[in-house]
Parts: sequence; C-alpha cells; structure tokens
Amino acid sequence: MQPQITSPSNERIKHARRVRDGREPELIFVDGLRLAEEAVKSGIVVESAFVASGSDDARLLALVQQLSAQKSVVLWTQREVLDALSDTVQSQGIILIAQRPVLDAAKVFQGKGSLFLGLDRIQDPGNMGTLLRTAEAAGAAGVIVLGGSVDVFSPKVLRSSMGSAFRLPVMVDVSSEVLLNLRTEHDLHLVAAAGEGELDYTDYGWRQPTLLLLGNEGRGVSPDLMAACDTRLRIPMENGVESLNVSAAGAVMLFEAARQRRL
Amino acid sequence: MQPQITSPSNERIKHARRVRDGREPELIFVDGLRLAEEAVKSGIVVESAFVASGSDDARLLALVQQLSAQKSVVLWTQREVLDALSDTVQSQGIILIAQRPVLDAAKVFQGKGSLFLGLDRIQDPGNMGTLLRTAEAAGAAGVIVLGGSVDVFSPKVLRSSMGSAFRLPVMVDVSSEVLLNLRTEHDLHLVAAAGEGELDYTDYGWRQPTLLLLGNEGRGVSPDLMAACDTRLRIPMENGVESLNVSAAGAVMLFEAARQRRL
Repeated sequence: MQPQITSPSNERIKHARRVRDGREPELIFVDGLRLAEEAVKSGIVVESAFVASGSDDARLLALVQQLSAQKSVVLWTQREVLDALSDTVQSQGIILIAQRPVLDAAKVFQGKGSLFLGLDRIQDPGNMGTLLRTAEAAGAAGVIVLGGSVDVFSPKVLRSSMGSAFRLPVMVDVSSEVLLNLRTEHDLHLVAAAGEGELDYTDYGWRQPTLLLLGNEGRGVSPDLMAACDTRLRIPMENGVESLNVSAAGAVMLFEAARQRRL
Repeated sequence: MQPQITSPSNERIKHARRVRDGREPELIFVDGLRLAEEAVKSGIVVESAFVASGSDDARLLALVQQLSAQKSVVLWTQREVLDALSDTVQSQGIILIAQRPVLDAAKVFQGKGSLFLGLDRIQDPGNMGTLLRTAEAAGAAGVIVLGGSVDVFSPKVLRSSMGSAFRLPVMVDVSSEVLLNLRTEHDLHLVAAAGEGELDYTDYGWRQPTLLLLGNEGRGVSPDLMAACDTRLRIPMENGVESLNVSAAGAVMLFEAARQRRL
C-alpha cells in the first residue's frame, strides 16, 4: 500500500500524539500488534488505525482486514512517521486510536469469581501494569481502581500489563464510598495489605469471597479504607526489611489466594 | 556552611555526572539520605560526598560528621547544582561517590542461609531493584547476578531496591560456569522459573538448600542453565495468561519458600 501519511505534522498524527500523551481523555492509544489484537478482540471501538505501509506480516494484515470490515479508518503511514509516533523505540507496525472502554460494576461482578483486587492511588505505570497482569493470572474476577491512580489504559500500563485491562473487567475512578457499597452488596471480606497488619497473609482464609486492597507506593491504603477493612494482612519479612514493592506484595498475596483455592 | 561548589560546570560535578551515567565503572553514585546511610553502614569506601549547603537536617549532618571522621571529602554544594546532579527530580541533600563494592563467593556463602537467588540477564532496573528487595525480605542469604544483567549499583536499581545490595551479599557479573560450580560446591538444588516447568512451585520442597534462577524479561533463563537445573518450576495461571512479570514471579516463588520454611 502506498502511504497516505508521510509527514509527522499531518493533522491526524498530531491528534494521535495528543491521545498518546493523555490529552484526549475519551480516547486511548494502543501501540503494537499484540495489544491491538487484544483490544479488537475485547470489542473496543476503534476510530482509526495507523498501519505501516508496505507491511507484509500476515497477522497484521488480517487485523487490518477485520478493522476495515468494521468500518474503522485505516491510515497507511510511512514507517518513520509511525516509529516517531510510537511510545516505544520502534513501532510494531500498528497503532490504534480507540474509544476508552467504560466498565460498570455489573460487568465486574457478573461472573462466579470471588476474588477481587482494589487499587488505591497506585502511581507507577509499571506497578499498575504488573498488578493487573498478576491479578488476571491469579484468577481474580475483576479489579476496582480508585480515583487518583495512574490511567490503566495509558500506553505504559497497557504495555507492562500486556493488555490485561482488555480482558479482565476493570472499573476505574471509583470512590471509596462506591467501593464500600460494592463490598456490602456482594458480601465480600475487605482485606488490605498493611505493614502493621494483625494477621499473617498465609493465615487468612482466601477461599472466602475477598476484595484485597493495595495502596499507594509511599503511603499505602488511605486511612478511611484501612479503617473499614475486616482484616489487615501483613507479609512476614526477614532482615529488618520494612516493606515490599506494591507489585511484589500484590503478587505474593494474590498467589497465596490462588494456592489456597487450588487445595 | 558556605557552598564550595556553585556551578554545574565544576570539574567535580562533571566527574560525578559521569559516575551517575555509568561511565566510571569503578565508582557508584548514591543519591539520597537513606541510601547514603545504608551505604556508609555497609562499610563502603566513600570518595566524596556532595552535600546541600545550608542543610539543617540532623540525620544528614550526623552522616556528614561520620564521613568527615573517616576522611571522605565533603563538598558543600549549592542546592540547585545538587538538584541538577541528582537522578531524581529533587535531590535529598546528599550524593555520595563511592568505590564499587566487590563481593566474592565467600561472602555470599558465609552464613547459614540456604536460599539463594540467581538472576540471568535481568534488563529492567525496576525489576532488578524489586527482585533484590524481595529476596532480602524473603530471607534469601545472597544473590548471584549473571553477566549481561543491569548494574545492581546503578542509581535506578539502588532506588527501587531501597539499597538491598548494600545489605544483602550480591555477587555480580558471574558466568554460568562459576554459578554451576558454586551450586556443586555448596550442594544446592538448582531450580528455575519456567513457563513449561514440570512441577508446580507449591509442590517443590523449599526447605531444601536451593538456588532459584530467574531469567531475562523476554527470553527467560538461558538454555545452558535451564538444562543444568534439577527441577523447572511453573506457576499455575488462570485466564490463559502465559507469563508473569519476572519480579512478580520471583516474589511468588521466594515467598512460597519463606512460607514453607516457617511451617
């Protein structure tokens, strides 16, 4: 295909950069073939797709065909322009501009799952991405992200989560009040990871329907939520270490839940 | 104190930038009060300390006194110059230039510990830092870092590890051959995290003296080491997830070891 877009100052490219940089809150920037496939599979509404002209990758071309069939705008773009637009060093040949998915509680609680993760003001995109991917792998049924957290659909989080937010039901920008109502409505035990927790996380009965709260990298779970918890869980640590990275603490607890649930 | 250094083009500042950027392999850059305290406590040789002039923080001044007593060069530096030198947005008032610690096998294996972590070509500083901190917290006796991994004393790794490499014995730039000799010499079970592992990590007997290998973010443990393992361990995952972030996988396995060892 001949490129339709050959200049980084093209208006559509400028707009895509704004999406990439988080300045178009209704839209998300999906960078790379595998993430784009996951996004399309999840039923996301793709407004436009920038595709490297001259691509002969069969998977890429199959995806482009699917996008064309569903009336997304496909824009063949010069390789160099696509690389410059990409959030990574070199683009993987496709970037989607798509409508931000909005998930309500009904979707998160529709299944039979009984393990949920709540994330309170997680700031680091790598931590957020790792936590989403870990939650999915551990069999969590959904994730509730409180307001003040990093955007789960930002390019860095999508990349480090490998697109978990396209597969796992995730509610975002949730208030403490809404979270506490959901806990009551669905009869969940609310537990939090806390350095000063009263119970070792291995002594907690993870087969109970549980919402596990993890908090901000520096400050932990906010005091109002911490006070509302049924149990505060600690991870016993050696060598005088006071805390783990939040994504490590989450992995330890979520996979202890998975271990107990397999027994 | 009056600043002795008021310009970013001062020769000592230029040299410190070279250390920060990894261009002086014999020296390391320790940025921030807490890391500096840990470094000094570990017995590291500090060549010079850049300290914000006008600081009145008691902990900072106590550390400076200790550094002066042990004949390190203390350089009072204008705040703005120190901020520009720092690897973070705003410096915490002190940056040390110190000799790179060199640890041999004797140090790693001197204690009674029987859980060791081997890291094979870990690339991401956040993963490396998280893994060191997690290993320390889980009670590992030492870490063996293979050649081709990110520098454990780089500023980003020191920050995300919270200085674990100053407290936990860490050998770096180790070859596969040396690692395999150490395994034989100390009679360790060599196990690796592997997507295709033959045993669930929860079914492994972690009370055995064990060296756990974790591999590169994209490619895992190198084939020669994988082939030499006694057991390859898998983490059972839900929802078709194929892999975890390496720092999450490490946290899950290391804390399963800690759990079993507490029983």
